[in-house]
Amino acid sequence: MSLNFNTIEWKDNQLYLIDQRILPQREEYISFNTVSEVAFAIKDMVVRGAPAIGVTAAFGIAIAARDSAATDYETFKQDIGSACEELFATRPTAINLKWGLDRMKAVCEANQELLLPELKARLLKEAQDILDEDIATNRQIGAHGATLLESNQTVLTHCNAGALATAGHGTALGVIYSAVEAGKNINVLADETRPFLQGARLTAWELNKNEVPVKVITDNMAGHLMKLGKIQAVVVGSDRIAANGDVANKIGTYNVAILAKAHNIPFYVAAPVSTIDPETAHGDDIPIEERPHEEVTNFFQQATTPKGVAVHNPAFDVTPNNLVSAIITERGIMRAPYGEAIAKLFN
Amino acid sequence: MSLNFNTIEWKDNQLYLIDQRILPQREEYISFNTVSEVAFAIKDMVVRGAPAIGVTAAFGIAIAARDSAATDYETFKQDIGSACEELFATRPTAINLKWGLDRMKAVCEANQELLLPELKARLLKEAQDILDEDIATNRQIGAHGATLLESNQTVLTHCNAGALATAGHGTALGVIYSAVEAGKNINVLADETRPFLQGARLTAWELNKNEVPVKVITDNMAGHLMKLGKIQAVVVGSDRIAANGDVANKIGTYNVAILAKAHNIPFYVAAPVSTIDPETAHGDDIPIEERPHEEVTNFFQQATTPKGVAVHNPAFDVTPNNLVSAIITERGIMRAPYGEAIAKLFN
Repeated sequence: MSLNFNTIEWKDNQLYLIDQRILPQREEYISFNTVSEVAFAIKDMVVRGAPAIGVTAAFGIAIAARDSAATDYETFKQDIGSACEELFATRPTAINLKWGLDRMKAVCEANQELLLPELKARLLKEAQDILDEDIATNRQIGAHGATLLESNQTVLTHCNAGALATAGHGTALGVIYSAVEAGKNINVLADETRPFLQGARLTAWELNKNEVPVKVITDNMAGHLMKLGKIQAVVVGSDRIAANGDVANKIGTYNVAILAKAHNIPFYVAAPVSTIDPETAHGDDIPIEERPHEEVTNFFQQATTPKGVAVHNPAFDVTPNNLVSAIITERGIMRAPYGEAIAKLFN
Repeated sequence: MSLNFNTIEWKDNQLYLIDQRILPQREEYISFNTVSEVAFAIKDMVVRGAPAIGVTAAFGIAIAARDSAATDYETFKQDIGSACEELFATRPTAINLKWGLDRMKAVCEANQELLLPELKARLLKEAQDILDEDIATNRQIGAHGATLLESNQTVLTHCNAGALATAGHGTALGVIYSAVEAGKNINVLADETRPFLQGARLTAWELNKNEVPVKVITDNMAGHLMKLGKIQAVVVGSDRIAANGDVANKIGTYNVAILAKAHNIPFYVAAPVSTIDPETAHGDDIPIEERPHEEVTNFFQQATTPKGVAVHNPAFDVTPNNLVSAIITERGIMRAPYGEAIAKLFN
């Protein structure tokens, strides 16, 4: 699809992000000019979505490089190291954050022979490469995944794994965009995805902008609509995939996977290889971020719960591999047993 | 529990309802003085919950009787008949509405010999009896249901089937209140229950007021917490139970029932016999109300979805009898096969 917005853009020597906290009410782009500002943008969810976080963090390192006052490589490397730590500490679940930072660190170390101004330029180029590659990767994910969808199907998605969650095109929504580009008629149902409403606010916004038919439902309506035969497939993204194929994704994904299984509806996960963490053996080993409780207790600054009542706010859950019909990456479609398929990918 | 609020109260010849649209932010009681006002209160969910709707409708008929200008029985009966029609048209799913209206109509017909002022008083007394009986019924439901819960269990509930959904004590929450009164230590998890947030706003409010420990979760967190072993039982209410034991209840109940089954957690339904509709053979025959779409697209008058994006808003779903571990009524605990148990109840 030809998207008429940029989730992440480097322009005039500044990082611009679309502010995902205020969509769909307002479409605003904010520039971030220091590592701390970029860390805030990730933590406060100005930008969210595992691939988008990875790309943003890479630009955070480019900014750290640009602004480093170091005059020797060792000091410069320390500056990059502390920036990596600050950015890594923002959110624990999405592995793409680590992946993006590791890649920037590796470029820094592999190019010690360059003069510092050259190395700074090289790091900025790497961040831009990561952004460009992410879009290309998503187009490949889309091309593979589109083969799994048939015309006139209604596809349920949870949270936002679209252009807004990546540098462009998206993972789960990339599959849908690619299917539509291939001439298939696809209707989308978007779980609103409480508490942050990524589905209602972001998925609906970008699909609507791209003229893909979308209807929003509250998270608790999916079972009812599945029972009525109104959903033919589920496609979601992921924040981290363990070596055995267990999938961490936005809270509620596990609910949807169980519902899909109970109704014999295929449950697909679309994610780049950078989302797979071969060092995490099982889904239970993936750290689950607990987000601020105000996300649940308040809505547009109005209290939804009585004063003094506690809430839970885990931002993610883990869907065990046996509920996953296929994992779609830029390298193709993986099926169970995922442990073998993933090992093959990394060997 | 000694509740320090009245959901429905007849006072100074007026019907008072606690305004459930604005809880927990404000605790306000509004009086309703005409049949149309009572119909509005039900339709706009000033009052909600199947038993509470039945009681409120009965008072609506008492108001119709009080205000009837008829001077003969036939005209009076016609006035009562039109009031019944107006009230019946408010909401289609909860069968208690029909039950309450039918009972008032029957009293009207059985007492034709009375002078009209006497008949009017008799109808008001019947409405008050329905209210008092509802509380007594809920205490019996609670006593039976409490035997199913053990101390130190965490119980998940969906929507609000509490004192606020009835004349007092509640059905699902009545089971919890009775267990607590019996000395059991029960922790409650309340699904926030989008879109109207009955769980976050109402269940949390009344449990908190009664000092029963409660935490609120978004509807999509239940599976995650079940997988972590944090939920030992589910108790919900119902708006209509078909003759075969299929259970209509607030949208999302079916999701919870599937999740409970997948985690081997008992799923209990607590409801008075008046919620059972022997004339509806199967759950698929229960009409499902589609509520105004603004409930999903707006939150405190702020848009959550982009302009031009459609939504679904079914207010209820149907949980098939095979997912129900037990149905708790004032007459005891029913187990599968429900068709037989229900037939026995009505014979």
